[in-house]
Amino acid sequence: MIQLLPVTGIPEVTPGSPLGEWIARAIAWEPGDVVVIAQKVVSKAEGRMVRLNEIEPSEFAQRCARESGRDPRLIEIVLRESRRIVRMDHGVMICETAHGLVCANAGVDLSNVDGGASATLLPVDPDASAERLAREIEAVSGFPVCVIVSDTFGRPWREGLVDVAIGVSGFSPLSDCRGQSDTHGYPLQATILADADQLAAAAGLIFRKTARVPACVVRGFTVVPGHGKARELIRAANRDMFR
Amino acid sequence: MIQLLPVTGIPEVTPGSPLGEWIARAIAWEPGDVVVIAQKVVSKAEGRMVRLNEIEPSEFAQRCARESGRDPRLIEIVLRESRRIVRMDHGVMICETAHGLVCANAGVDLSNVDGGASATLLPVDPDASAERLAREIEAVSGFPVCVIVSDTFGRPWREGLVDVAIGVSGFSPLSDCRGQSDTHGYPLQATILADADQLAAAAGLIFRKTARVPACVVRGFTVVPGHGKARELIRAANRDMFR
Repeated sequence: MIQLLPVTGIPEVTPGSPLGEWIARAIAWEPGDVVVIAQKVVSKAEGRMVRLNEIEPSEFAQRCARESGRDPRLIEIVLRESRRIVRMDHGVMICETAHGLVCANAGVDLSNVDGGASATLLPVDPDASAERLAREIEAVSGFPVCVIVSDTFGRPWREGLVDVAIGVSGFSPLSDCRGQSDTHGYPLQATILADADQLAAAAGLIFRKTARVPACVVRGFTVVPGHGKARELIRAANRDMFR
Repeated sequence: MIQLLPVTGIPEVTPGSPLGEWIARAIAWEPGDVVVIAQKVVSKAEGRMVRLNEIEPSEFAQRCARESGRDPRLIEIVLRESRRIVRMDHGVMICETAHGLVCANAGVDLSNVDGGASATLLPVDPDASAERLAREIEAVSGFPVCVIVSDTFGRPWREGLVDVAIGVSGFSPLSDCRGQSDTHGYPLQATILADADQLAAAAGLIFRKTARVPACVVRGFTVVPGHGKARELIRAANRDMFR
């Protein structure tokens, strides 16, 4: 059995909040626990927020804003967080971030901050964020804990958003079954499972967008040991059949 | 708390096996339970299998096979299950199935069947499969049970496979949070969550490719009531920014 345990009772997170310690003290940890932490609180604790009224939109941002009816300051922030615009249409911007993540608005988000005056940005290095939070949690738990920083992304082909892993610490995000055989002795071929994304999606069931639950412990799942990074989940352009 | 419970003790599934009844009798059901059933056993129970030595490959399949080093009979089956080839390169075929699902090899799979002599095909109508299995399970449980038929798909942009919902019965696969506000009163905008895909991905943690676990019960998740279909998860081409 696997259990998905909501981490509750975490105070409002602001820049400098000891988020790892708060999460660590909210749970009676068990060896093998994986904790999935929502990007929003990680970004807030790291001070990755900008106030819209401090942003001077570029000419391009202003033109985009006129054509889409969106706030030019928000578009300016999205452009600053992007290294490539994958697609831009109907007021939607699908961006590739500096990390190589492909998502709407480069992960810039006005919800769950302060009512629309400020936007959160993705952590500068979400793998490093996961690593730092793991150290903070381990100082309390006394043993290794796996950490995922997750965000809620849309996807090609399919409707609806799902949580994916943007930062990882303490395990391998991909589980490589190649070389193994099925129960009939037939070799498994292209089977590399995205464990970290499935863990994040499972936590997404706990998060639900409006709930005050910033983290979820997954208990009972055996991770692949390793020092993996979420950036391994980003498919290289030359290996991506969809680009 | 949400629990992910493996459904174990299911005999080897063959065409005509009473899969729903077997799953129903393996679990002490509770109201609100969602059961995720792996496509492979659903296809087997429905007899959606073909023996490779009964397939006459077309000229096109033979040419593809020569260029990719793959079995021409397998390619022929993949072509018959496809309504569109999205991309074809390096021996990989990304296909759009008759259902509108986009996946490798149109869901045709040689693993976990009989050691490579036969391939499984996706169910003809996975939503109808889910509905039928729900009726079979409810005959035993005595109350409504939500059913998902899941398969393991690759994705654009990201490495690794995840389980997604290809059939659904008893609830709405999409959870529409538009019109709701966050805890700061800011309206949530584009937030439609793919509940069914997150449930499938959570079950994917239980399935792991080589384990003899054909189904997983998710207990403690509150579904959105409705008579939804997994086909709602397929994004219409004219709404898909990635096509």
